[in-house]
Amino acid sequence: MLVMSSPSGAGKTTLSRRLLALDPQIELSVSVTTRAKRAGEVDGRDYSFISREKFAAMRDGGALLEWAEVFGNYYGTPAQPVETALAEGRDVLFDIDWQGTQQLAEKMADDLVRIFILPPSADELAARLKRRAQDPAEVIAERMAQAAAEISHWPEYDYVLVNRDIEACEKEIVAILRAERLRRSRRKGLGSFVRDLQAEL
Amino acid sequence: MLVMSSPSGAGKTTLSRRLLALDPQIELSVSVTTRAKRAGEVDGRDYSFISREKFAAMRDGGALLEWAEVFGNYYGTPAQPVETALAEGRDVLFDIDWQGTQQLAEKMADDLVRIFILPPSADELAARLKRRAQDPAEVIAERMAQAAAEISHWPEYDYVLVNRDIEACEKEIVAILRAERLRRSRRKGLGSFVRDLQAEL
Repeated sequence: MLVMSSPSGAGKTTLSRRLLALDPQIELSVSVTTRAKRAGEVDGRDYSFISREKFAAMRDGGALLEWAEVFGNYYGTPAQPVETALAEGRDVLFDIDWQGTQQLAEKMADDLVRIFILPPSADELAARLKRRAQDPAEVIAERMAQAAAEISHWPEYDYVLVNRDIEACEKEIVAILRAERLRRSRRKGLGSFVRDLQAEL
Repeated sequence: MLVMSSPSGAGKTTLSRRLLALDPQIELSVSVTTRAKRAGEVDGRDYSFISREKFAAMRDGGALLEWAEVFGNYYGTPAQPVETALAEGRDVLFDIDWQGTQQLAEKMADDLVRIFILPPSADELAARLKRRAQDPAEVIAERMAQAAAEISHWPEYDYVLVNRDIEACEKEIVAILRAERLRRSRRKGLGSFVRDLQAEL
């Protein structure tokens, strides 16, 4: 389970998409949200867009691994697709904020790898948010203000990357993923491999 | 601080040399030993070959980070070059066994990354030891017997690799090194970078 968090505009969504295209072993956890769909977003790919009533029912019924309220909208991670993927030996990528990450870490700390992505500078963050250009000006101003709050949670992550260059940052994420899969604690079947090896010696 | 351990013949020495050639940020901790120099070994590169009296004086004077006795010979890691390298921001590679690794982990657990390298099979391990062909037959037999004991310590390592192919194994080590350098706890200077970023937002 790989979590990527960052303030809006630091490049997290682009990096997620590139990683998913690159690595067939990993799949995205598609969050549910009550916010309105933006232009270009696809229901079931970017988010599952649901009503507030549906969200409340999922949350209260224990069907969400984590949830959070951001700018008056609700976001959450449905438990069932994650549990299926993990049971089938696939990795899951979570594009969630610090609130969701804290909840996931409480529930499944052992299997969680947390990456925080920082923008190279405040100016660059502002430029990226303006380039996206789908949000009204007051939302952009609010996101800039929220970025400082989101960034304050960087010490809760296992890895911290500075996204100066998208290709370099992607290579760093690939190396982290590769290394984490080689961790002893994740190498299922190695115990019996070693027992066979020792028996032959 | 990167530790690589494995039974003799699993490819650890070859992998160490390749990694050192590849990565200028890392340097090898050259162990001291009381055993006789083998053909092709260079004093000060493969080991510093010293007398039993010198070894005892270093050990008793606290000049060794770890030491062990293997096949009646003594091996140890001089503290001073390691401390100099770390103070200057370089990484240090240790080609030591499980006994040395345990001692290092007691002294400096936080900064230690431990990799264990397994041979792909008992037959391949035997073939590699015979190919090396510098040891008398009884030493090879003894090393095979010791391999099972060394291998039993794999659960004490952070990463476990199976050396089926030297190039693939090298790439795995490079990914581990790259990822470990991106760990939040090792990213010196990031705290002030984030404070500057937040001040601008």
